[in-house]
Amino acid sequence: MQRILNKIKQYDTIIIHGHKRPDGDCYGAQFGLKNIITSSFPTKKVYVVGETSEFVDFIGKMDVITDDTYQGALSIVVDTAVSDRISDPRYALGQEIIKIDHHIPIDNYGDLRWVDTTFPSCAQMITYFYYKFRKELKLTLEGANALYTGIVTDTGRFRFRGVSKLTHQLAGLLIEKGVDVEYIDGELSQESLEMIALKGYVYSNFVTADGFVYIKMTRDVIEKYNVTDEQAASMVGLIGGIAGYPVWALIIEYPGEIRIRLRSSGPTIDKLANKYGGGGHAKASGCKLNNWEELPQFVSDIEQLIKVYKEEA
Amino acid sequence: MQRILNKIKQYDTIIIHGHKRPDGDCYGAQFGLKNIITSSFPTKKVYVVGETSEFVDFIGKMDVITDDTYQGALSIVVDTAVSDRISDPRYALGQEIIKIDHHIPIDNYGDLRWVDTTFPSCAQMITYFYYKFRKELKLTLEGANALYTGIVTDTGRFRFRGVSKLTHQLAGLLIEKGVDVEYIDGELSQESLEMIALKGYVYSNFVTADGFVYIKMTRDVIEKYNVTDEQAASMVGLIGGIAGYPVWALIIEYPGEIRIRLRSSGPTIDKLANKYGGGGHAKASGCKLNNWEELPQFVSDIEQLIKVYKEEA
Repeated sequence: MQRILNKIKQYDTIIIHGHKRPDGDCYGAQFGLKNIITSSFPTKKVYVVGETSEFVDFIGKMDVITDDTYQGALSIVVDTAVSDRISDPRYALGQEIIKIDHHIPIDNYGDLRWVDTTFPSCAQMITYFYYKFRKELKLTLEGANALYTGIVTDTGRFRFRGVSKLTHQLAGLLIEKGVDVEYIDGELSQESLEMIALKGYVYSNFVTADGFVYIKMTRDVIEKYNVTDEQAASMVGLIGGIAGYPVWALIIEYPGEIRIRLRSSGPTIDKLANKYGGGGHAKASGCKLNNWEELPQFVSDIEQLIKVYKEEA
Repeated sequence: MQRILNKIKQYDTIIIHGHKRPDGDCYGAQFGLKNIITSSFPTKKVYVVGETSEFVDFIGKMDVITDDTYQGALSIVVDTAVSDRISDPRYALGQEIIKIDHHIPIDNYGDLRWVDTTFPSCAQMITYFYYKFRKELKLTLEGANALYTGIVTDTGRFRFRGVSKLTHQLAGLLIEKGVDVEYIDGELSQESLEMIALKGYVYSNFVTADGFVYIKMTRDVIEKYNVTDEQAASMVGLIGGIAGYPVWALIIEYPGEIRIRLRSSGPTIDKLANKYGGGGHAKASGCKLNNWEELPQFVSDIEQLIKVYKEEA
């Protein structure tokens, strides 16, 4: 971290990159870091570049810069495990490259790396960086809002494993800077009418089996509600946590195959996912069907899994 | 606080009460305090009494005690602003009564009171009590889970105004005691199939006007989905925060009148609520209609309010 601070001090132009399809943590880390640098060193030129994401654009606006800007500049890439996910690829034009990330490292791009998977968000890493060097660094409300947004989005509002005493300590520090938690929550909670209508479809059309609940997302549903495949797939959480239904799934039709997002709050499901051409974690896996005719057998296999689980419990 | 600790030390039997229809914060404060006292002073007899609440019963089970138990005992009432809301009323049988609460005080029951409205939850007060006297008090994981549950339920997972640096600092302390945030979240997220189905009704049947979205809860809907009036009314949040719709309402039919839960993220709505026999806050009000025939005029008034608001903005 001291070496990263030294590099920041050394360069006059610093360009901050994130990953493709950026999320709240990516934006939070990018704009939080920009705020720390510009507040602490007002003469430096700092740019944030990359793809935009509408739902977090209240955090800040991306800069548009020419290739020339990279001459003699420092590139800092945040929240991105692998180099081909970096947005945009001109990060490589920088004179030196720093990687700051909390994901399991997949490739070791960058001349200098700070990778720590114990952090539940990259924004927490940037906040910690500020905290550690707070005697010589500054952070204003704008940056605090960005960092707080990153922390809450990547932890599901302080819910996921990995949230530690340090997470709360640093969130408290940001609140002390004036962060308006209700404002940020309101911004993050904005939804489109299409997504609300799609929720209606999910809640009204899910199917229940023995301990298993699932929702089918066929092509005509996705088209009717005018949502992306990703938005459709994101609905899997809606049917989780129903009392008496420890396993749930969202089944989405793609051209040529049917993909299943499988979730559990009880039995281990990754072995079954393996059987159906997929895999993943004990409580969150993905797998496939070749066609809808295979669905009854899949449901039956899940029911059997739940039955065994209940007998053993 | 020192006087409360002295009283706790003085009594051999301590009975902890909360309020009627207890919520997560009430349970959290009750069982958290019980855990602190029994862990710190193992010879004392400590009981938690009052109404039960199914959705938080993972925190602990209420004790059933006879009237005799109150002889020479200390009653501590948490999270309850007014004496006739205390569950159960035998708290008055105690030799002395202590009130610990974070609501605006409505009556001043109790021989000794610690009331502080700057705390966003009563569980945070109990956690702070432990923290302040941590050199002589103990707290185990069971109590930490209870207190953490109280903090997250009363702050909507650290979202509401009133959440401060201290809130996060104390939450961090509880996590350090081993609190499993995912387990607690899983317990709090359990929903019944009826409530899920009712969500489906809301998301599939809301009505949009100019900037205004509302859902009608008629008697036949409430009966069809087999939910309580309160459960039906709680759905108002589902249609909030939709982009382009700054005002939303849940309209619920009661025998003889129609009540409206009105919410806004933009214009001030309490004046309009006054006009319709109600009132409340600038962004959250309640009002009434005499019959469904009055609904079109109400919708028209709301649309006008939004139009003026947008022109002024």
